[in-house]
Amino acid sequence: MQTHSIKSLLNDTVETGTAVEIKGWIRTTRDSKGGFSFLVVHDGSCFDGIQVVANNELDNYDDILKLFTGCSVIVQGDLVESGGKGQKFEIHAKSVEVVGWVENPDTYPVQPKRHTMEFLREVAHLRPRTNTFSAMIRVRNTMAQAVHQYFSQNGYFWLHTPIITASDCEGAGDLFRVSTLDMMNLPKTDKGEIDYSQDFFGKESYLTVSGQLNAETYACALSKVYTFGPTFRAENSHTQRHLAEFWMIEPEVAFADLNDVAQLGEDFLKFLIKKVLENNMDDMKFFNGFVDKTAIQRLETLSDDTFERVNYADALEILKASGRKFDYPVEWGLDLQTEHERFLTEQHFKKPIVVMNYPEEIKPFYMRMNDDGKTVAAMDVLVPGIGEIMGGAQREERLDYLLKRMEQHNLDPAEYKWYTDLRRYGTVPHAGFGAGFERLVSYVTGLSNVRDVIAFPRTPGSAKF
Amino acid sequence: MQTHSIKSLLNDTVETGTAVEIKGWIRTTRDSKGGFSFLVVHDGSCFDGIQVVANNELDNYDDILKLFTGCSVIVQGDLVESGGKGQKFEIHAKSVEVVGWVENPDTYPVQPKRHTMEFLREVAHLRPRTNTFSAMIRVRNTMAQAVHQYFSQNGYFWLHTPIITASDCEGAGDLFRVSTLDMMNLPKTDKGEIDYSQDFFGKESYLTVSGQLNAETYACALSKVYTFGPTFRAENSHTQRHLAEFWMIEPEVAFADLNDVAQLGEDFLKFLIKKVLENNMDDMKFFNGFVDKTAIQRLETLSDDTFERVNYADALEILKASGRKFDYPVEWGLDLQTEHERFLTEQHFKKPIVVMNYPEEIKPFYMRMNDDGKTVAAMDVLVPGIGEIMGGAQREERLDYLLKRMEQHNLDPAEYKWYTDLRRYGTVPHAGFGAGFERLVSYVTGLSNVRDVIAFPRTPGSAKF
Repeated sequence: MQTHSIKSLLNDTVETGTAVEIKGWIRTTRDSKGGFSFLVVHDGSCFDGIQVVANNELDNYDDILKLFTGCSVIVQGDLVESGGKGQKFEIHAKSVEVVGWVENPDTYPVQPKRHTMEFLREVAHLRPRTNTFSAMIRVRNTMAQAVHQYFSQNGYFWLHTPIITASDCEGAGDLFRVSTLDMMNLPKTDKGEIDYSQDFFGKESYLTVSGQLNAETYACALSKVYTFGPTFRAENSHTQRHLAEFWMIEPEVAFADLNDVAQLGEDFLKFLIKKVLENNMDDMKFFNGFVDKTAIQRLETLSDDTFERVNYADALEILKASGRKFDYPVEWGLDLQTEHERFLTEQHFKKPIVVMNYPEEIKPFYMRMNDDGKTVAAMDVLVPGIGEIMGGAQREERLDYLLKRMEQHNLDPAEYKWYTDLRRYGTVPHAGFGAGFERLVSYVTGLSNVRDVIAFPRTPGSAKF
Repeated sequence: MQTHSIKSLLNDTVETGTAVEIKGWIRTTRDSKGGFSFLVVHDGSCFDGIQVVANNELDNYDDILKLFTGCSVIVQGDLVESGGKGQKFEIHAKSVEVVGWVENPDTYPVQPKRHTMEFLREVAHLRPRTNTFSAMIRVRNTMAQAVHQYFSQNGYFWLHTPIITASDCEGAGDLFRVSTLDMMNLPKTDKGEIDYSQDFFGKESYLTVSGQLNAETYACALSKVYTFGPTFRAENSHTQRHLAEFWMIEPEVAFADLNDVAQLGEDFLKFLIKKVLENNMDDMKFFNGFVDKTAIQRLETLSDDTFERVNYADALEILKASGRKFDYPVEWGLDLQTEHERFLTEQHFKKPIVVMNYPEEIKPFYMRMNDDGKTVAAMDVLVPGIGEIMGGAQREERLDYLLKRMEQHNLDPAEYKWYTDLRRYGTVPHAGFGAGFERLVSYVTGLSNVRDVIAFPRTPGSAKF
């Protein structure tokens, strides 16, 4: 007898009347007085479980009556059309083998009821057994696969940039140090400083904050590359939007300018969303019903909208002319805050926008100086409901400009020799963006806390499991 | 005029006579006395470049004569059939725009000649401009995409397990500490020990050595998951086979036993190899010609062979009966060494083999105890030319056995409460394997040093770039 995933049975790929086997976990049980037990079994392959009807003629019916949420079973029986509401098929069991019981059902943490997200974070090893988290991981998987599909179909190569790095490439936020030195017997130099030459890599080393600079080296040889890997911020942020460890996607394209990557970002985001709408409508209906009533409509709208492009300077004018009172000032040379971003995308344009050409003083050294001498070719993609969802730039490909910007940022050119080499040897205009994957999943599912869109979140004070 | 990748032009997707644009880098130049310059331009989209014929009627012909390996150009012209040997198409240029020169061609590190691998590691930011490394990254990309394709097509979900962890899950080798403590002012407890409660995560934290234990939690809810992410070993190994940072693939399957994952490993490996043979024959021909004369034949043979399964006990008998003199002893309770592995797969079976059921004392605590009470359900997949390429096991799903094994391994059950919970609540037989991605790429390409199959290798003393 063939074992089937519940998804394949519910998707009508097996003829009714066929003898089938399924393996999974009990979600709910209900016993009728007529000598029947109704078991809903999930295996995670899709949102729904399948109903198994077991009658009291089965040898182990006494055991079946004791089944509880979380127990694991192997069921053999006939697939039949279901008379029940909301289900097309069910299985009439010929055998129900109990594989694993639940020790003390009363204290099983994942009872068949609604739990708070805070509680479920405390049992992150069991939360994939809930509707919310199994739906989340399926949607997340679809999006992650779509990342690779999108770039592969468009001629990009996936590049694994280093996780451990000996240079703080962007000076972006606080860094995690990576070391094997004995903390109780730290080696010191003559000057009394820590002697990192004795550390594993012979230098002070950190977890990466971005693979971009490394990706540029391969883009300047293979034309189109992207990274999709973990990145780190040792910021003491306790917001819904920050993780200490998160996954980032960073395409980098040779012979591309700012407009090219603005378009790339738009196409990429729409591709991901279409894949979710194609493959995960059952999961999205759940999110739409229980997490965010606008989830599906929001995705459908976004995949049809053309993103509006607006210069930073013009965005400032719109904000000033709005008559709104913002908490943070609106002024040339200051970055846009979430309240500004959300006003622009939700109230003014009522669609996703790309804000372009920011003042150079608020952007990193590697962004390309525009001809106006005061802005750089930077962009942020903002979407309704969340604000910034990706950020990118054209890179400074002119050696003299780049060296000058590095000097302004107090960076040591010797440390970045390899990076500036790209401008010495066959330099090309090139551009790319970075998108935090968890923010994308948060946006798509409506799960507003990024701790709930990754299996085991790392945040200040917590590296559990 | 449309811009084309060189791959699309060489693959016969554009009609001859069409006006085309390409963007890339000069690999070689040759000037004829007849007033022609022949430029071979690469863009990384495929192994070969395309020949561009520029004649002295072009405005900037003086510049074209100065072009050198590494210069970047944009070429417009007509695609025509080539009379030259070894190339089907060439471009007759109407314009050759020089985008980026090479500063001082005499000292450009990547001259058009053969370089040593050691030298190229010193210029890892430029080595993708060579045949070897652009071919490597294309093959690596095909294999990485194939990992996702294989598991997606078979109903697995990609799970991102944590990189930073507060538990040394397997006690596997040395660990990298992750910390934000001020090394010059380390907080101490009353007992004079480092006070990690003041560190970022409130506990001593490390880089992960495996995502397996975390993956088990999701397999026990979603049935089939896999990880594909970076893992770390702080071992002071200077061999060709070791990196401090490498990428690992770890599928984990509920309701699966050791034989199931032996088959999974075989199918998975063959799928990857077939994808490379389908998509990267040009790159593989290069490796076959210049790196490993048996590369293509080895892959073709492997994808046809059925992997032989042999018990560890029987493998010992074969080794003992071989009459061979090995450097390391062959004895029950000792792990197989590379010399043993290679004898078995290369000399005895002459095909890939799966060695199964190892003595429990040489395997980690989580592997399932066999009925014989002395072996565990572990397996290693060995291939000719390299030895072990993946290792897996059925996990101990019985709580009492698991707790006993943890006690034998001096592990604190309280630290692993979450892991043992999987055996308290609906436990199921489950199994999985781990495959180091760089070893797979090394095997496929024939590049014997794993430093040469990842863009920026991390090894003791080196975290450059």
